[in-house]
Amino acid sequence: MQSPFKLPVAKQFGAIFFLFIITIITACDKAVEGESKDKISSSLSKEKTRNQYEFSTEESFDSESIAPYSGQHTAIYKHIDQSIEQHTAALQRWMRQPSISAQNIGIQEMAEMLRDDLTNLGFQESNLVKTDGHPGVWGYYDAGAEETLLVYMMYDVQPVNENDWQSPPFEANIIENDLGQVMMARGSVNQKGPQRAFLNALESIIAVEGKLPINIMIAAEGEEELGSPHYPQIVDAYEDRMKTAKGVIFPMISQSPDGSSRMLLGVKGILYFELESQGGEWGGPAKAEIHGSYKGLVDSPTIRLVQAIASMTDKTGNTILIDGYYDDIRPPTQEEQRLINKAVSMGDDQALQKSLDVSQWIDGQTGRAATVDLLYNPTLNINGIWSGYIEEGVKTVLPHLATAKMDSRLPLGQDPDVMLQKVRKHLDKHGFDDIKIRKLSGYPGAQTSVESDLSQAVLSVYNKYANGVSVIPRIGGSAPFYQFTERLNLPLIPTGLGYGTGVHAPNEFLLIKPNDQTKAAGLAEIEKAYVDIIFALANK
Amino acid sequence: MQSPFKLPVAKQFGAIFFLFIITIITACDKAVEGESKDKISSSLSKEKTRNQYEFSTEESFDSESIAPYSGQHTAIYKHIDQSIEQHTAALQRWMRQPSISAQNIGIQEMAEMLRDDLTNLGFQESNLVKTDGHPGVWGYYDAGAEETLLVYMMYDVQPVNENDWQSPPFEANIIENDLGQVMMARGSVNQKGPQRAFLNALESIIAVEGKLPINIMIAAEGEEELGSPHYPQIVDAYEDRMKTAKGVIFPMISQSPDGSSRMLLGVKGILYFELESQGGEWGGPAKAEIHGSYKGLVDSPTIRLVQAIASMTDKTGNTILIDGYYDDIRPPTQEEQRLINKAVSMGDDQALQKSLDVSQWIDGQTGRAATVDLLYNPTLNINGIWSGYIEEGVKTVLPHLATAKMDSRLPLGQDPDVMLQKVRKHLDKHGFDDIKIRKLSGYPGAQTSVESDLSQAVLSVYNKYANGVSVIPRIGGSAPFYQFTERLNLPLIPTGLGYGTGVHAPNEFLLIKPNDQTKAAGLAEIEKAYVDIIFALANK
Repeated sequence: MQSPFKLPVAKQFGAIFFLFIITIITACDKAVEGESKDKISSSLSKEKTRNQYEFSTEESFDSESIAPYSGQHTAIYKHIDQSIEQHTAALQRWMRQPSISAQNIGIQEMAEMLRDDLTNLGFQESNLVKTDGHPGVWGYYDAGAEETLLVYMMYDVQPVNENDWQSPPFEANIIENDLGQVMMARGSVNQKGPQRAFLNALESIIAVEGKLPINIMIAAEGEEELGSPHYPQIVDAYEDRMKTAKGVIFPMISQSPDGSSRMLLGVKGILYFELESQGGEWGGPAKAEIHGSYKGLVDSPTIRLVQAIASMTDKTGNTILIDGYYDDIRPPTQEEQRLINKAVSMGDDQALQKSLDVSQWIDGQTGRAATVDLLYNPTLNINGIWSGYIEEGVKTVLPHLATAKMDSRLPLGQDPDVMLQKVRKHLDKHGFDDIKIRKLSGYPGAQTSVESDLSQAVLSVYNKYANGVSVIPRIGGSAPFYQFTERLNLPLIPTGLGYGTGVHAPNEFLLIKPNDQTKAAGLAEIEKAYVDIIFALANK
Repeated sequence: MQSPFKLPVAKQFGAIFFLFIITIITACDKAVEGESKDKISSSLSKEKTRNQYEFSTEESFDSESIAPYSGQHTAIYKHIDQSIEQHTAALQRWMRQPSISAQNIGIQEMAEMLRDDLTNLGFQESNLVKTDGHPGVWGYYDAGAEETLLVYMMYDVQPVNENDWQSPPFEANIIENDLGQVMMARGSVNQKGPQRAFLNALESIIAVEGKLPINIMIAAEGEEELGSPHYPQIVDAYEDRMKTAKGVIFPMISQSPDGSSRMLLGVKGILYFELESQGGEWGGPAKAEIHGSYKGLVDSPTIRLVQAIASMTDKTGNTILIDGYYDDIRPPTQEEQRLINKAVSMGDDQALQKSLDVSQWIDGQTGRAATVDLLYNPTLNINGIWSGYIEEGVKTVLPHLATAKMDSRLPLGQDPDVMLQKVRKHLDKHGFDDIKIRKLSGYPGAQTSVESDLSQAVLSVYNKYANGVSVIPRIGGSAPFYQFTERLNLPLIPTGLGYGTGVHAPNEFLLIKPNDQTKAAGLAEIEKAYVDIIFALANK
């Protein structure tokens, strides 16, 4: 199987943040729900071939059923409060070091800064990891503990358009806005801010207790914004040791300004490919566009691509007509059903529709039906299509080439390479065997159980600090978390309190010190929650 | 009815040259032809809904049946030979005056130069014609004759990329190449060269005979390369007088280097429009692209456009499934059948396929079947299509907007606005009523009879000078000749001997003095042929 990291999957992984932060993917519309059924069943109706799943439970997962974390690490909290200036400065030091992977700006320096920070914290192992791209950074803190936590980090950031920023992106100035004091900088949210806050938490524990209560492995990469093309090489180097961890966290903000927090447990997989139609033996101009008036004699590769894509879906574009494209899907488990029931009860279709400028969901669906369709069926989407003359006015050409960028989001159970074969077979079966497929990216979905020790520990801490916690069972977006969940068989949770915005955009900022109206955590509380999570994982 | 000139139809008209000069549109493949039938019939098969036409004659038009023009105007020919240096200089003077309509370079100067040249030739009327764009030029030479010839001219040229030229485009240098001496300049072929050669012929007749044997109207525009948006205003100003002409010529080269000549009698009409699909009440993102992972919830305007276009044709893209799209077509007349039979017998499918890099024609057709299908059925073509992310690599978006530039070439009998209504009805009927149609251009086809006095006079002169004459009954390309053929009810023929190349391209040149190997006419012979055509039209 081709490595899903071989080709750029830029923004796939980064996209998770956007989705995670703004998405309320589900909606409250009980009217459309059927009655509770005893057993899961997936059915294939004749008019609508997408899988439909009947739930066997109407119960909802209650995140409040997990008791708030009760540990009190007062001395450490006090240390955090007393060190907050230095801790803020540590974040600034990281943000003032540009590390733009796409432009190879500051990458080596940032990798070394992370490595040296780990050394200074007392990590027995801290070293760069050679890959075929930007180096990884490995760190290991041996606490002599039974439990080990694996921390996934990324030290690279997105490029910037400096002119669009109200404060220079690599100055990391503290600015007052309606939420309180924020740090404005590229990487403040995505992802240096939460990561350095996590290290501040480690520093505080060590400063007060002399050592950590749990062993920590850190496996960072400098190519997340490029689609993590060489992360598998980092896993290769430490795979056996990584497998001994009890779980993986990815430091991340999770709150809204109102203090409510979200926990994400799963992502869909993705298959991203280009379809290309070009003139050749079958007909059409082979090498260059010709005058449009020849259409009466000459086949159009562009119409051919249009016909080929059209054959892959029904007229609505929402049901895929490729043979077997709804096979192999793992239906919602009882646990996932409870999570979905809860998420749907808290969601709001109309609010999300408004935020996206969308009048209605596909087929007029709402509520649980829409959510389950999103999360447990594959999609087919045109990200882009182009051919011929695409400027102003009239030019009459018969183009020789037409290309479409397609993606398919895959629920758990579906393998991107198997799906790719189904696309190929479909094209061949319908006489489009000359249309080329170029795979650009592909990896399967990932799912972590809410019952895992990691999930329970993080939830208990969120319940201590956050103003309500919603658990998102899965999103329609994709991230290559399968590297941890499938390859290493570990639960993975993006973890952390805090609020910020501007990911992949100008004026990215992280809330440092909330004002009285803002309920989301500031830097000190973010760090305290990380302290608690570490102790909770150590069962302390 | 919207004026077909209201919006740019750039290159429609200019395209005619390209097609006229290089096209051998038909092919020799007698094997596929049926037997001679008594009566024309057009049938609609169930498997293939394009109209099929059975010919009622297998006879071929023989251009040699028209006797070569027998007049001898020796004194005028001698004047031409003696004046060839000044005549060449007159062409150079025109080419050295840039007149790029798209960039408004030298337009006024060139219009005045043409006007003044007409005055100097003895035209009683010669004046600029105000339009909402670049001015037209009107000229009238009253010879006191019964017959009047209308000459359509264009004084504008295409833009240039000077660096691509081996000799500067506005120096009009005489250069030696394998054909002989050529004049290299923008406009040398398209269209100043042939036009000024025509005026040189007039000058020679007047110099020798004192006056012309026929009245001449000249109606020139400076916006042909922009799609003739204001030519109707020039016709408006002189319509009644123009109608008194016996025909229209458009000075143009028509020969190959081997001396064979082509005469074009007809063009197809065109309907050019954009289809646009955008999110709205029906679904889809209304205002901006959203993240691609929402496809499971949100309709895709791009797939919608693809489905809409796909619904308009069969899977091959070559048969149009829009109701009534093959109605109203005037089948080939007996005259046209004879012309097509002749053209097919001289054509070569494989040579044209090779020149276009096309392996086969649609449906594997060849010979007369392919030619008749091209000329007597409408087409549907995608000139361009675009939506979403069309750069390198992976970006996952669900675009809110998708656009296609379509054109339909219309045989005689079909009206572009009626066809547009059929497209609209089709989209509505198939549930695509939200898809917008923007008409960018549209005009009907045009056909001149080979039996017209104009055609016969021009053919007789070609038969005197050319090394074989093929009459092209119609091409698949379009030009707004209907302004003359339909509005004024006049025959129109692009007329003139000579050879050149580089239209709309670098290194445009006109053959001025052929060497011994080249059989096409040089400037002197081009002018002599125009002299003969004028006398032939005067029945002298």
